[in-house]
Amino acid sequence: MTPVNLAEKLSRITTHWDPHVVADYNDNDVMVVRFQGAFPFHLHEDTDDFFLVLEGEMTMDLDGSSHPVKAGEIFVVPKGVTHRPRAEAECQVLLIEPKGVPNTGDPATAAAKPRI
Amino acid sequence: MTPVNLAEKLSRITTHWDPHVVADYNDNDVMVVRFQGAFPFHLHEDTDDFFLVLEGEMTMDLDGSSHPVKAGEIFVVPKGVTHRPRAEAECQVLLIEPKGVPNTGDPATAAAKPRI
Repeated sequence: MTPVNLAEKLSRITTHWDPHVVADYNDNDVMVVRFQGAFPFHLHEDTDDFFLVLEGEMTMDLDGSSHPVKAGEIFVVPKGVTHRPRAEAECQVLLIEPKGVPNTGDPATAAAKPRI
Repeated sequence: MTPVNLAEKLSRITTHWDPHVVADYNDNDVMVVRFQGAFPFHLHEDTDDFFLVLEGEMTMDLDGSSHPVKAGEIFVVPKGVTHRPRAEAECQVLLIEPKGVPNTGDPATAAAKPRI
């Protein structure tokens, strides 16, 4: 039980689309990640997807609409909704997902989510 | 499905220890709150308690230890652990708790958690 400094954790990550677990909240992974470029469109049938932009700006593309999300803003994608995060310049994000959820929606292509 | 700007939401809250719901994540309330002074010691038998300091600094008092938590830092209190947040100067916090959880650990004294 110690505080987790998000900037310190992010300073140890250089890769993009590579979420690292920094804390546990009930049965969820709390993660930090760097976004740059466009992630594949996907959906999660059984869970919402929580994004909080810490630094920079991303765009959340949905089916038919695009939403800029800036530092200090949250975007929750409801379960079953097709989406892709996208960032022109590098963006730092706090992610929360239930443990075991593949970040791409597909275990075959999902990131490993190591603990940092 | 729109971004939620946390500073804008907080600008509409003037009271302390008065969490307001700004988003839903699965069956959890995502809330913003202003802390100042000391909250009562309490525990949640059935859930972890998620705190992210957005502005300022708080202290998380546990049974026998105290942990400063600064802006950009997370502190998760595991279920069953007695704790109280405390802030000498006003502090702005993002809270996540399952819906229906009393913030004091006791429905009789819990805050209402209105949506903002």
